[in-house]
Amino acid sequence: MPTYHVEMMEGRTIEQKKKLVAEITRVSVEILGGAPESVDIIITDIKRENWATGGQLWSEPRS
Amino acid sequence: MPTYHVEMMEGRTIEQKKKLVAEITRVSVEILGGAPESVDIIITDIKRENWATGGQLWSEPRS
Amino acid sequence: MPTYHVEMMEGRTIEQKKKLVAEITRVSVEILGGAPESVDIIITDIKRENWATGGQLWSEPRS
Amino acid sequence: MPTYHVEMMEGRTIEQKKKLVAEITRVSVEILGGAPESVDIIITDIKRENWATGGQLWSEPRS
Amino acid sequence: MPTYHVEMMEGRTIEQKKKLVAEITRVSVEILGGAPESVDIIITDIKRENWATGGQLWSEPRS
Amino acid sequence: MPTYHVEMMEGRTIEQKKKLVAEITRVSVEILGGAPESVDIIITDIKRENWATGGQLWSEPRS
Repeated sequence: MPTYHVEMMEGRTIEQKKKLVAEITRVSVEILGGAPESVDIIITDIKRENWATGGQLWSEPRS
Repeated sequence: MPTYHVEMMEGRTIEQKKKLVAEITRVSVEILGGAPESVDIIITDIKRENWATGGQLWSEPRS
Repeated sequence: MPTYHVEMMEGRTIEQKKKLVAEITRVSVEILGGAPESVDIIITDIKRENWATGGQLWSEPRS
Repeated sequence: MPTYHVEMMEGRTIEQKKKLVAEITRVSVEILGGAPESVDIIITDIKRENWATGGQLWSEPRS
Repeated sequence: MPTYHVEMMEGRTIEQKKKLVAEITRVSVEILGGAPESVDIIITDIKRENWATGGQLWSEPRS
Repeated sequence: MPTYHVEMMEGRTIEQKKKLVAEITRVSVEILGGAPESVDIIITDIKRENWATGGQLWSEPRS
């Protein structure tokens, strides 16, 4: 029943997503208990123009 | 003022979304009170490669 | 598999929450299909000092 | 470390997003303290067919 | 209609929250347009034991 | 920069949370790259009366 939301910069491959959800599910079950089938993970690919750190979008050149 | 976020697998029609938001707003007002205008609903269409259950993306063939 | 997040002002009774999740699940299955067991709903009770509309917290007297 | 999520109707320009994240970061640091680099802001552009108020999608003509 | 969610470490005063929501609403209207009444802001106070950076909870002493 | 939100039923110990954030950060860096310091994880403890599956709150006896 734990539910994970992952926000990451867009551009990751399906292969990386496959590995990530397998591993997060594994460590979740190992540490929190429960069945793997009860673990849901939703990934959100964020565009660089939609994420800012330090007041600056990641689509902008950083000085 | 209640705010609903709905995450669903992509592929639903506008017709389904129209019915869903009308019905959720109706039951929300009926049960919680308040005006329909104060109910906001935001839908997120999730791609199959971005949702995993049991450690496996829904874009993968399930055994 | 649709997942609902409901943010509402704190103070609703268990009875209201029970009815709300039963009804949302019912309309969700009716309109989007799928099994009731695949519908998850998470409620967040928001304190009045943590919700603002029009630049003013709901814990403040509104003029 | 404060993290901001902004949901807005799609259609805003990069210029608006640049100004918005700069200003939110500025007021956040001014009021809450901390370094600008610790402020993260994630914007979500919502399609009109995915946002409803008063039981009606914003993609529908409003009477 | 823009909706802001702010996640911050617990411990901020009501006075800080009042200023923050007033200022975010002001800059939002200034840059994105719309009426102040259409701006909603929801604050979540996060306990130090529920936020981790670099693999370590903020409730733990940082070396 | 990946940001994880974990929703789990309340009642987990600090020890479990410590292990979980350490492990998620480790697999995140291993698979997605980046520095551990750029990984943020926010945990939300959900009360049983606030999570429903199959139209029923988890605070209710399940038949």
